[in-house]
Amino acid sequence: MDRLTATSIKPIKISQIARILNAIFDEKKDQEVSSFCTLFPGEPGGISFLAKDSYIKRLKDTKASVVIINEKQICPDDSNSICLRVRNPYQAWGKLLSELGSRITWSNQEISKSSNVHKSAKIAKNVVIGENVLIGENVVIHPNVTIYPNSIIEKNCIIHSGAVIGADGFGFALPENSEETLQKIPHIGHVILHEDVEIGANSCVDRAVVGATSIGQGTKLDNLCQIGHNVQIGNGCVLAGQVGIAGSTEIGNHVQIGGQVGIVGHIKIGDFVRIGAQSGVHKSVEKGKTIIGSPAVEASIWRRNFANYNMKSK
Amino acid sequence: MDRLTATSIKPIKISQIARILNAIFDEKKDQEVSSFCTLFPGEPGGISFLAKDSYIKRLKDTKASVVIINEKQICPDDSNSICLRVRNPYQAWGKLLSELGSRITWSNQEISKSSNVHKSAKIAKNVVIGENVLIGENVVIHPNVTIYPNSIIEKNCIIHSGAVIGADGFGFALPENSEETLQKIPHIGHVILHEDVEIGANSCVDRAVVGATSIGQGTKLDNLCQIGHNVQIGNGCVLAGQVGIAGSTEIGNHVQIGGQVGIVGHIKIGDFVRIGAQSGVHKSVEKGKTIIGSPAVEASIWRRNFANYNMKSK
Amino acid sequence: MDRLTATSIKPIKISQIARILNAIFDEKKDQEVSSFCTLFPGEPGGISFLAKDSYIKRLKDTKASVVIINEKQICPDDSNSICLRVRNPYQAWGKLLSELGSRITWSNQEISKSSNVHKSAKIAKNVVIGENVLIGENVVIHPNVTIYPNSIIEKNCIIHSGAVIGADGFGFALPENSEETLQKIPHIGHVILHEDVEIGANSCVDRAVVGATSIGQGTKLDNLCQIGHNVQIGNGCVLAGQVGIAGSTEIGNHVQIGGQVGIVGHIKIGDFVRIGAQSGVHKSVEKGKTIIGSPAVEASIWRRNFANYNMKSK
Repeated sequence: MDRLTATSIKPIKISQIARILNAIFDEKKDQEVSSFCTLFPGEPGGISFLAKDSYIKRLKDTKASVVIINEKQICPDDSNSICLRVRNPYQAWGKLLSELGSRITWSNQEISKSSNVHKSAKIAKNVVIGENVLIGENVVIHPNVTIYPNSIIEKNCIIHSGAVIGADGFGFALPENSEETLQKIPHIGHVILHEDVEIGANSCVDRAVVGATSIGQGTKLDNLCQIGHNVQIGNGCVLAGQVGIAGSTEIGNHVQIGGQVGIVGHIKIGDFVRIGAQSGVHKSVEKGKTIIGSPAVEASIWRRNFANYNMKSK
Repeated sequence: MDRLTATSIKPIKISQIARILNAIFDEKKDQEVSSFCTLFPGEPGGISFLAKDSYIKRLKDTKASVVIINEKQICPDDSNSICLRVRNPYQAWGKLLSELGSRITWSNQEISKSSNVHKSAKIAKNVVIGENVLIGENVVIHPNVTIYPNSIIEKNCIIHSGAVIGADGFGFALPENSEETLQKIPHIGHVILHEDVEIGANSCVDRAVVGATSIGQGTKLDNLCQIGHNVQIGNGCVLAGQVGIAGSTEIGNHVQIGGQVGIVGHIKIGDFVRIGAQSGVHKSVEKGKTIIGSPAVEASIWRRNFANYNMKSK
Repeated sequence: MDRLTATSIKPIKISQIARILNAIFDEKKDQEVSSFCTLFPGEPGGISFLAKDSYIKRLKDTKASVVIINEKQICPDDSNSICLRVRNPYQAWGKLLSELGSRITWSNQEISKSSNVHKSAKIAKNVVIGENVLIGENVVIHPNVTIYPNSIIEKNCIIHSGAVIGADGFGFALPENSEETLQKIPHIGHVILHEDVEIGANSCVDRAVVGATSIGQGTKLDNLCQIGHNVQIGNGCVLAGQVGIAGSTEIGNHVQIGGQVGIVGHIKIGDFVRIGAQSGVHKSVEKGKTIIGSPAVEASIWRRNFANYNMKSK
């Protein structure tokens, strides 16, 4: 199993899942599902869902054994997946995660007995470490840090005071009419901080809905940054203070991000990209570009526009 | 008493208040004051103040029994309130809050004995809960959360690690000359989180100066949000990460606010409004509008301007 | 020693430093170095470095006894400092700080026995106070605050829950090629909060690389602010929520900064400057100006441009 894109569960038959979701299913095709996975790449034995109806065209590209789709759609002939058709795929996905995923609980110890903390790690006072957390060699954790269950903190990481690793990602299924309430999507994934990562004071790295939110080797985050669920950050990146990155965005290696930058979800930022302070990044950016502005454009365009803007005022 | 807009105090005569403020008062009209209240609606038995001199025209609309006004102004004939005239109403208000309001103190227990925590609530390690706090059924509080005295957390709320509920609102009377120091305005109100509210990691909800800062049923806040004193948020709203809302602003129901949005104080955002990421909202917004930009304008205008802006650079 | 711009170390000969850095040094000129200092003003007995090669012209203006410069440059004749020439001055500086500076450690007590907390100070539950911290008279520290070693908190300061005082500043020497990792620059300085400072919930004030990050008397910070290493803020300033100030910037007295403002490093903001919410300040600002926008311009220019911008859309 790819721990970045899937989270294993106690195996369950598709027929049972179909019953939970009130979905029609031809029981002759029954088999076991053993993980929740993202749609791409997806994995054999895994179940996923269609976040947007338009993804149906790409259904042949997933390796997931089962995919939850909108009941208005038909499973394409070229797909290798079994489709479960429901009225609201995201709600159904949330329901399954809620019924089959394991829940976050906190032990009565500050440092859970089920966690695995390397003896060379330095854990300061008032740090709370949840169940099944791994803390590697020479990790330094400053006071008042919280590490949610199942997080993996590799060797030489430094986590400053007040940082929160692994809190619930922010995901809610919107109600179909305004009388209903938002439905919380449980997050059963985890966080991986690779070797030599540094997390600034009061920064937050949310855990993944399934799989992992991952921060690559040697990447450094300043204070008060917000990293959404399922974000993947590469190696050797530098994120200045108060940066926010929304869910599922992928950041390459050696990317430099200025203070207070916001990046929307589900986009890709190439290697060696540089992003000016306070930029708002709303679409994917190719390798090596320098961008700035809100919405962000290439730096050369931005400078010309800003010159125009100031000239006009004279 | 309306707990959203007023905070009760030990009853005191107006004549005594006038003495504290060095204000002239006709003692024949003396009566008891039993609460501090906001100017609107105001309540019988309450005292309030004029934040801006221009509010004098609307003085007839308050139900407050006593209002502190600028000594350069005259109490209008159509007002039902008793006016106390002082040199600097905001400073006088601060002085009264300081002398008559109760102060925040912390007990020696992590969970104050005077708090009332429902037995089904799950309180993790290193959570500090102040005096007279109410925690409802099935509330979940993650590690390292702080809940200041007098907060009300209704059932099914979830509060993530590092969140701070009920810290002092940010209010200071500016000095009249640069030699003097800023005068802190005590905040004697509280915070109410209604049922099913979720507060993200390291988010802050400040308590009210009087009355309550209130977050409506089913509203969800992502991480690192800042909610100012006396803000009122409706039901079913969604606030993405790093949003900031300044004091006394009212947000309707089912409002969606993108990441890193800033909203100034003392404005109203209608129901079902949608606000694009990184927007700066500086004036009230009607029901149902979609706005974006800093300063924020309607999305259709913003898109046209942004197209112009990019075309010019070619 | 000026505690704002220098940090003392155990005295060491220049010849030893030269050996650590593999720098050529004429041992006839040997003497002792007793502090790390900023380049300006610099102090006798101190060692500093050239952050930019172009500063070489101003080398005569430093009082530092020793300055690390690029090996491609030659020490000017009019300089009173001894120059140590190395391939990468910032890396060399980091190496020296790492080898000669003292390291942050946390004691096993929540409040370190080596700290000095005035008996009138009120320290709430779950506050962690590091070694050699000074806490003055009547200071109030709310729950879950962390104060790193060597911080100085003068009398009457108020620090709200979740605030982090003195975490590592964000400084890394960039690698010369992408295979290498970022080199962490140790921060051996500290933080000074002068009298009557208030720090909002979950705000962060980083400690200085050498000398101090300093916040002046009576200055008030709202929640979730980020103050970088070596920032100097004057007296009587007001910073609204979510403001970020990057390293080494100097803010004058009585400056008012709106919510979500970002200010780049190494600039100067004059006394009585006012900065509109969400502004991005990228260059120094003269005394008394009002600025707004990202990038920020004078308010009168900004208003005209915004009017143009909206007119065009009609």
